[in-house]
Amino acid sequence: MTTPEPDVAHPVTGLDEVVHQRVRLGILAIVHEARRAEFGYLRTQLDLTAGNLSKHLSVLEVAGLIGVEKGYEGKRGRTWITLTAAGDAALADEIGRLKALIARVRLD
Amino acid sequence: MTTPEPDVAHPVTGLDEVVHQRVRLGILAIVHEARRAEFGYLRTQLDLTAGNLSKHLSVLEVAGLIGVEKGYEGKRGRTWITLTAAGDAALADEIGRLKALIARVRLD
Repeated sequence: MTTPEPDVAHPVTGLDEVVHQRVRLGILAIVHEARRAEFGYLRTQLDLTAGNLSKHLSVLEVAGLIGVEKGYEGKRGRTWITLTAAGDAALADEIGRLKALIARVRLD
Repeated sequence: MTTPEPDVAHPVTGLDEVVHQRVRLGILAIVHEARRAEFGYLRTQLDLTAGNLSKHLSVLEVAGLIGVEKGYEGKRGRTWITLTAAGDAALADEIGRLKALIARVRLD
């Protein structure tokens, strides 16, 4: 048996768990769409507890995919999330791989 | 603030971790494509250890998404994996949600 060429490996082998995980994929997609999203908005959109959202934001921040900025809106503390250039690239890569995966699955 | 309608929630909120997880999504997609896949073939396609593949197959079997059948090819033991009707439906649901997610992400 010969070793398969890298480009014939199944598209899922190239997916990055940091980006592909359900909640983190949602965070990246929403922040990409909104350009800049507030913590409470993400929490509502994704139906998460604050603790769960914080945990996933930390993973993305440590990976360099998002920036987290704390500030105020009036007297209320707010946390704003943006994508870094690496975050934009990682989301684009994930979307490309998902499209390749979908193209291979014939649902009929 | 009003409660969002369920149909305006972000597509990732409806993703099922059992199906969406990278390796399990690969297993379902490959078995769907092949109709019936052998353990060693899955291992090669997904570049996994036997232990890691077994762990993910168990999750899918317990969820009722795959059938696992042991048999022989000559004198060699073989394990064959097929999708159940629920497995086919779960894959179709995942693909539909991924398409909805992709449609919302503008990469330009």
